Amino acid sequence: MHTRILNVECPDRRGLVHAITGVLLGESLNVVGNQEFVDPSTRRFFMRTEIDGEVDEPRVLSKLQTALGAGAIIRFPPLAAKRIVVLASKEHHCVADLLVRHMFGELNCTLLAVIANHETLRPLVESFRIPFHYIPAAEGAREAHEDALLKTLAGYDLEYLVLAKYMRILSPAFVQRFAHRIINIHHSFLPAFIGARPYQQAYERGVKVIGATAHFVTADLDQGPIIVQQVIPVDHTHSPQDLAASGHDVEQMVLARALKLVFEDRVFLCGNRTILFD
Amino acid sequence: MHTRILNVECPDRRGLVHAITGVLLGESLNVVGNQEFVDPSTRRFFMRTEIDGEVDEPRVLSKLQTALGAGAIIRFPPLAAKRIVVLASKEHHCVADLLVRHMFGELNCTLLAVIANHETLRPLVESFRIPFHYIPAAEGAREAHEDALLKTLAGYDLEYLVLAKYMRILSPAFVQRFAHRIINIHHSFLPAFIGARPYQQAYERGVKVIGATAHFVTADLDQGPIIVQQVIPVDHTHSPQDLAASGHDVEQMVLARALKLVFEDRVFLCGNRTILFD
Amino acid sequence: MHTRILNVECPDRRGLVHAITGVLLGESLNVVGNQEFVDPSTRRFFMRTEIDGEVDEPRVLSKLQTALGAGAIIRFPPLAAKRIVVLASKEHHCVADLLVRHMFGELNCTLLAVIANHETLRPLVESFRIPFHYIPAAEGAREAHEDALLKTLAGYDLEYLVLAKYMRILSPAFVQRFAHRIINIHHSFLPAFIGARPYQQAYERGVKVIGATAHFVTADLDQGPIIVQQVIPVDHTHSPQDLAASGHDVEQMVLARALKLVFEDRVFLCGNRTILFD
Amino acid sequence: MHTRILNVECPDRRGLVHAITGVLLGESLNVVGNQEFVDPSTRRFFMRTEIDGEVDEPRVLSKLQTALGAGAIIRFPPLAAKRIVVLASKEHHCVADLLVRHMFGELNCTLLAVIANHETLRPLVESFRIPFHYIPAAEGAREAHEDALLKTLAGYDLEYLVLAKYMRILSPAFVQRFAHRIINIHHSFLPAFIGARPYQQAYERGVKVIGATAHFVTADLDQGPIIVQQVIPVDHTHSPQDLAASGHDVEQMVLARALKLVFEDRVFLCGNRTILFD
Repeated sequence: MHTRILNVECPDRRGLVHAITGVLLGESLNVVGNQEFVDPSTRRFFMRTEIDGEVDEPRVLSKLQTALGAGAIIRFPPLAAKRIVVLASKEHHCVADLLVRHMFGELNCTLLAVIANHETLRPLVESFRIPFHYIPAAEGAREAHEDALLKTLAGYDLEYLVLAKYMRILSPAFVQRFAHRIINIHHSFLPAFIGARPYQQAYERGVKVIGATAHFVTADLDQGPIIVQQVIPVDHTHSPQDLAASGHDVEQMVLARALKLVFEDRVFLCGNRTILFD
Repeated sequence: MHTRILNVECPDRRGLVHAITGVLLGESLNVVGNQEFVDPSTRRFFMRTEIDGEVDEPRVLSKLQTALGAGAIIRFPPLAAKRIVVLASKEHHCVADLLVRHMFGELNCTLLAVIANHETLRPLVESFRIPFHYIPAAEGAREAHEDALLKTLAGYDLEYLVLAKYMRILSPAFVQRFAHRIINIHHSFLPAFIGARPYQQAYERGVKVIGATAHFVTADLDQGPIIVQQVIPVDHTHSPQDLAASGHDVEQMVLARALKLVFEDRVFLCGNRTILFD
Repeated sequence: MHTRILNVECPDRRGLVHAITGVLLGESLNVVGNQEFVDPSTRRFFMRTEIDGEVDEPRVLSKLQTALGAGAIIRFPPLAAKRIVVLASKEHHCVADLLVRHMFGELNCTLLAVIANHETLRPLVESFRIPFHYIPAAEGAREAHEDALLKTLAGYDLEYLVLAKYMRILSPAFVQRFAHRIINIHHSFLPAFIGARPYQQAYERGVKVIGATAHFVTADLDQGPIIVQQVIPVDHTHSPQDLAASGHDVEQMVLARALKLVFEDRVFLCGNRTILFD
Repeated sequence: MHTRILNVECPDRRGLVHAITGVLLGESLNVVGNQEFVDPSTRRFFMRTEIDGEVDEPRVLSKLQTALGAGAIIRFPPLAAKRIVVLASKEHHCVADLLVRHMFGELNCTLLAVIANHETLRPLVESFRIPFHYIPAAEGAREAHEDALLKTLAGYDLEYLVLAKYMRILSPAFVQRFAHRIINIHHSFLPAFIGARPYQQAYERGVKVIGATAHFVTADLDQGPIIVQQVIPVDHTHSPQDLAASGHDVEQMVLARALKLVFEDRVFLCGNRTILFD
C-alpha cells in the first residue's frame, strides 16, 4: 500500500471539497494531506490530496467525474518516477546536477537520455551510464534539427523534456507536441536585458543581484508559466565571467527545485501562472 | 457580509474534512480558501477555512461540535483587530516598526499601550499618540515589578502581549496568566551563545550570519514554539556594534512577520511547534 | 580627534597606493581601514581610506593633488551628517522608516524636510517634528510643480534629495541641478514590466519574487547607477495587493541600506555603475 | 605572465601599505587589486594583493621581510591548483558536488583521492576516475583507523583535507598534523542542538530555518574558525527526512563556497575568526 496523489481542478462552486471527500470516504480512503486553492481571478478550484489506502482507480475516477461534472480534470498520477529526456548544449552545470540527483533518486524521475547539439558533455553524461546523443544544429536548419530531435525522442517513452541550458529556440510546432511538458531554465536580471551577451550587459549596468527562472515552455519564448525564481547577490568586483558563474549556481538550484515540484505533481497550470502546493 | 475565518483542530480521523464541509454546505456557506494539515507525529488535524456568507455563529459551532466530538477545538476568531499591549525596554527598533505598521493598519491589531521599564521610548511612543507607561524594574524585585505590570495591564482589555525587546525574564506565574498569548523576539546565532553580551561573543566567534527568532513565550525561557526565524549575512568587518545593528534589522522584520501571522489567525500550536497557514 | 574618510578616484597607474600612503605617512596619519578597486573596464582607480589623526585638510589635499595629478578627484567628506530633503507622495512605508532611523541617528543624515504632492503623510511627518511641505502637482503642469519645488528647496541647504516613492518623473533640467545627489527607490521584477499597474502585471505573470532597486537618478528615467537591489519570495496565494505589500517591505529595506552606504561615503560612481566599499 | 597573489599579515603599525607598495613599485610590479583589513581587537594587519608582472619571488620576499620585520608572514601562494584529499562516509551530496566542480575546474583544486569509511560512494567516485580508498572504522578503534588514514594519505602530496560529511571526530594529534588545513562542513540550527539525531531534534523544536557552517577544524570539535554560513527556510510540513534533504542542499552550497574562497587564497585566520577577502 502506497500513498497516492489525487489532483483535481475544475470551475469553483459551493460544495466541491465536501463532494470529493465524500467519494473518498465512501471508498474508505484516508486523506493524510490536502491542499486547495481557489484562484480569485479565474474562479478555478485546485486540489492536491494525499491518500492512504487501496485505490480502485477506475471506480474512484468514475465516481469523482460523476460528482464533479464534465469540466473537471481529475488525475491519479502514476506511482512510477517520471520519465524524462534532457536537452543540453555545452554548459555542464545544470546537467551535472541533474545527473547526480538522478543517481541518488532525489527527483522522482528516470533520466532516459541526454541529447545535445555539441559533444562537450558526452564524457560527463556517459560516466553516469546515461545514453548521450549528439545531434548537431547547423545554422539556419532548425527544421532539420528538430526532425532529428523528434526521431531520437521517438525512441524514448518520455513524459517530460527538460531544457538544461539548451540555448536554442524551439518552434511552436515542436513545443505543441509536448504542451505543458517542457521545462526550461534561464538567467534573469533586474532589470531584464534583451539581446545577446546578457552577462556583459548586466555587468555594464552594474546589477547587484543575478537571478534564474524555471518555467514551462510555451510558443511565446521565455514567457511561459513561471515555476521557481531566485536570485543571489553580486557586486562591482564581479567580472562578466564571475556574474556568469553566479548565474550558473542559481540556475542549477532553481531548476532542481522546479523539477522536484513538477515531478511530485505539486504544480498546476492556471492560465499563464502556476499554482504550487509545496 | 465579511469573510470569516474558521479554525479547527482535533485528533485526526477519517472523514473530518467531509464532515466539516458538510456542516458549512448545510448552512449555505461558501468556502473560498482552505488549508489543512495532519501532523504525522501527533496524528492531530488542523484546518483554517475562509468562508463567505452570513454565519450564524452559535448554530454553526454547535453543529460542528456535534459532528467532530468533544475533543475538537473550534473557533470563529472575532472580526475585530487584535487588542495588544507592547512591553519594551530601551531599544527602539521593534517598537518603532510596530508603531508605524499600527498607524497604517498593516498588522490587524489595535495597539492599546506601550509599557517599558525605562523612560527612553516615551517621546517616540507619544508622538504616535499611544499611551506610554513607565514601570521601573529594580534589581531583585521581579515580583513587585510584575505586580505593577499586572495592575497596569488590568486597565486594558488585551488579547496579546508583545515583548518588543523587553529583555527581562517573566515568572512562570506571569506567563501562565497569558498562556499562548505572549510573543517574544530575540536574536539567534549559529552556533548559539549562552550568557551575557551575545554580540560580543558572536564577534569573537566570527559568525557569518545573524538571526532572529519570534516565538510564543512559555515557562521555559526562550524555548517556546517558534513562529518565524530568519538571518542576514555579516562579515569580519562588522564590529560587535555593527552586528547588533544587523541583529536589530532582522529582529524587526521577523517580529512584524510573526505578528501578522498570529493576528490573522494563521498560527496553530502543536506541542512545542507551530503550524503556519500562510 | 575623529576618524576621517579620504576618498580618491583617478585613472589607474602604477604606484598610486604607494604615493597616497606616502603623503599620509609624511603627515603622521594612521590608516585604520583601506579599500581599493581598479575597474578593469575603465582602468579607473577608487580608494576609500579611514584615517586616525589630526588632519590638516588643505595641506593634505594639496600634497595629494600634487602627487596624483590634475585628473584625480580627492575628497575629505565633512564630518557632519548629510543634509537631506525627502520627496514623497502618498505611500508611507519608506518615509516612515526614514523618520524612525533619522530619529535614532542610524543613517548619518539630518532630515531637513519632507515635501509631498499630497497631504496624506503630514500627520506622520509632523509627529516626528519634521517640517512638511505640501506642493500639489496638477496634471500637465510639471514645470510649475518643479518651480515650486525648487523654491521650497532653496530654503534648505541640502546635499541629497531622496525620492521615497515620489512617483513622478523629474525633468532632465531638474535632475541636472542635483547631479549624482538624487536617490530613488522603485520596485523591480523578474521579468521587468513596462507601463501602468506593475503589481497587477506581476500577478498576471505569476512571478515568484518581488524586488526593489535603489539607484541614483539620471536624466534617463530609472536607468541610473544601481546602489542596492534585493528581492523577497512571493507565491500564487498573493493578490496584487499582497504583492504590493511585499514590494513595500523590500523597498523600505533596500532604500535604508542604500542611504546608509551613500551617507557614509561608501559609494563611488563609475560610468553607469557604482563601486560600493561596505 | 600570470597574475600572482601576495598575502601578508603582521602586527599593525603606521606605514605598512606604503612600505609594501614601495617594494612592489621598486620591482616594477603592478598592483591590480588590493584588499586590506586591520582587525581592531588584535591590531593585526591583513593584506591580499593581486600583482601583474614577472615576480622574482625570493628577491621580493626578502625585500618585504626586511621592510616588515621578523613578525610578518609573507606568502606568494603557488600558481598551481591546490592538492586535496576528501574524507567521506556514506552521504553523497557534498562529494558529488565536489566531483562535478573539480571535473570542470571551478574550485582551483586537484582532487587526488576520496577516502571513506564505507564502500557506498565508490561507484560515484570511480565514475569520475578519481581514486577511492575504503578504510573501515571499527567502533572504538580510532587510533587504528587514523593510522590507516595517515598511511593512505602519505601516498598523496596533499595540501588540504576536506571533510565532506565525514561524520567522525578526528583526534587532536591527527588535526595537529594538518593544522589550518582541514575544512569541515556541518549542519547548523537556530537554536543549536547537542547530541544525536539533530534533524529529529530540529523537527521536534519546529525550527523555521536549517543552516550549514563550513569551518577549519581545530582540536576543539566544531569550534574552529567559521568560513561560510548560510540557511534555507523550512516549515511545519517538513518531516525530519525533508529537513535533512534541505540540510544537504545548504551544506553542499556552503562547502563549495568555502573551498572556493580558501583555494583562491582569500581566507586569513585571525585567532578563532576568519578574514575573507572576496
